[in-house]
Amino acid sequence: MKPTTLKQIAELLDISTSTVSKALKGYSDVSEKTKRLVLETAKLMNYRPNSFAVNLRTSESKTIGLIVPEIVHHFFSSVIKGIISQAEKKGYLVIILQSNESYKLEKKQLDLLLSQRVDGILISLANGTGNFDHLNDVLLQNKPLVMFDKIAKIIKCSKVIIDDRKAAYTATQHLVDIGCKKIAHFRGSLLPQNSIDRFLGYKQALLDNNMPYDSSLVYICECGDRSFVEGKESARKLLNEHNDVDGIFINTDLVAIGAMTEFQKLGVKVPEDISIVGFSNWFMSSVISPTLTTIDQPGYQMGKTAFKRLYKEIQQIKRNETVTHKKIVLDTALVVRESTIEAK
Amino acid sequence: MKPTTLKQIAELLDISTSTVSKALKGYSDVSEKTKRLVLETAKLMNYRPNSFAVNLRTSESKTIGLIVPEIVHHFFSSVIKGIISQAEKKGYLVIILQSNESYKLEKKQLDLLLSQRVDGILISLANGTGNFDHLNDVLLQNKPLVMFDKIAKIIKCSKVIIDDRKAAYTATQHLVDIGCKKIAHFRGSLLPQNSIDRFLGYKQALLDNNMPYDSSLVYICECGDRSFVEGKESARKLLNEHNDVDGIFINTDLVAIGAMTEFQKLGVKVPEDISIVGFSNWFMSSVISPTLTTIDQPGYQMGKTAFKRLYKEIQQIKRNETVTHKKIVLDTALVVRESTIEAK
Repeated sequence: MKPTTLKQIAELLDISTSTVSKALKGYSDVSEKTKRLVLETAKLMNYRPNSFAVNLRTSESKTIGLIVPEIVHHFFSSVIKGIISQAEKKGYLVIILQSNESYKLEKKQLDLLLSQRVDGILISLANGTGNFDHLNDVLLQNKPLVMFDKIAKIIKCSKVIIDDRKAAYTATQHLVDIGCKKIAHFRGSLLPQNSIDRFLGYKQALLDNNMPYDSSLVYICECGDRSFVEGKESARKLLNEHNDVDGIFINTDLVAIGAMTEFQKLGVKVPEDISIVGFSNWFMSSVISPTLTTIDQPGYQMGKTAFKRLYKEIQQIKRNETVTHKKIVLDTALVVRESTIEAK
Repeated sequence: MKPTTLKQIAELLDISTSTVSKALKGYSDVSEKTKRLVLETAKLMNYRPNSFAVNLRTSESKTIGLIVPEIVHHFFSSVIKGIISQAEKKGYLVIILQSNESYKLEKKQLDLLLSQRVDGILISLANGTGNFDHLNDVLLQNKPLVMFDKIAKIIKCSKVIIDDRKAAYTATQHLVDIGCKKIAHFRGSLLPQNSIDRFLGYKQALLDNNMPYDSSLVYICECGDRSFVEGKESARKLLNEHNDVDGIFINTDLVAIGAMTEFQKLGVKVPEDISIVGFSNWFMSSVISPTLTTIDQPGYQMGKTAFKRLYKEIQQIKRNETVTHKKIVLDTALVVRESTIEAK
């Protein structure tokens, strides 16, 4: 059975969770009557009020939990490396779980980490995650939570991200600048914020350049295990439906590499016939032929920054200070390579 | 001879038996100095833990530790994925550490995992590891240990490996079969068993085909972070020293991709001038141009198998059964692609 949360008690009594929390801690700004009510309800519901808070103050576990959608993935493995390098310095161990882009698994893993009493949690959301209650549960238990890359805007915790919209705008603007007249977009799936933001950046760049936005030029790729194959499939579809496209901005390098492979196979030349810009700057993108123009996304630095932020919040809780939340936006850069070329 | 008891160790060191017991279990309230002293004495006195007594006091943590040399690495990230998928099924969490190919770090991390009371440990050794006492320490503590890929033959524990020598022989034989007359080898560093075995497989294939073995045709690459650059450097050196080489068997795909990139830059054609066989079958190898002929190394399956073996041993200890050790050898296959071609 899942442990009772502050939220459940609050809902039952029709008061705020912060009042419940204060009542349980015996704060003087809560009336004696409310305190008694909260304590009795907590007892009835088998709520174990202090297990996590006490644990944090007295015996740290010196481990943190990390949930990523995918491990065999250049970007996420770089982030993991950054996190581990920083955790190592502070004497922390990292429990790593992989959600396989599944909301159900992500929720289960978050519960598992909480029951293991990790000192804090780092997470990048699964593509399938559209409900965020499980994240709020973490915060209700007064457990530091830092989201990175794939985040939920509405959750009140620290976040380490890039400006996906701006980066996508830059990528699309590059295609406009070299003379592309009809620019398609292979976007990520519908839920993740970063895939939404990259799409919005693409759209904005078109509008700012007085180029009509055409939704039929936008192809959806799930960007999970099948990224490479999805790139190939979308490339084929695009050629059938819009054979006059001369530029594509693609959500992820691996999808872009799939698309380039398919174009090559079908006799369409990159960049002569179609210029392509990817996103993420996987190592692979610098060694394939043609090398891929892309947005460099600083994975290692993102990992380091996310751990540092989490560590800070763990210390704040330890010292009974108010936990401050921060949104940290890391810089990206357009890396121009062979897959884009000035139109003649 | 009667087995050594905790009491005998305690008397010799003039400390309490409970301190000896705690030291052997890696408890954190015993100093590192005492731990080391107890472990060394236990080793000298041939102490073997009484698994029944140990078991009575041990509660499962349902976590295991995993140490890999590198995470941003297609092969190891595939292994990790296999381990996590299997651990998930059995309700185990995985603490992942990265040794960065350093013996010192690996040793420290092993101590850390023991003090965290993980139920078992999976490890692939760092290139820098030439001393194996730290691994024996794990076994002395009656903690299941399974090594995979980069192993130490002399340690008495279960191992999940491929037959590196046979696979390397197959790779080299392929170069002979297509008509290569002078075959070089870019090997891994000197210590790791798999790099030694791949070298021996290369050498044996030459001898069996009555081709002279020439040590100046063997180039050493450390195969860490710098793999790609090392491939480029070795390619350049090879062209200077032996410009009549027509085939190379290379220890790792990433080094091979570096070498191909450099050859392309210098106007040497792969496979027309030089045929190349890599090792591991990174995803990248199937999308670069030319695609790379390589040995397929089953990373995901290796991870699954290693966890299954560890789980079996954890159960054996739990049931007070004798722990059995097994060497499991997984199959590899030659994947012929564009980087090798029949001589005209």
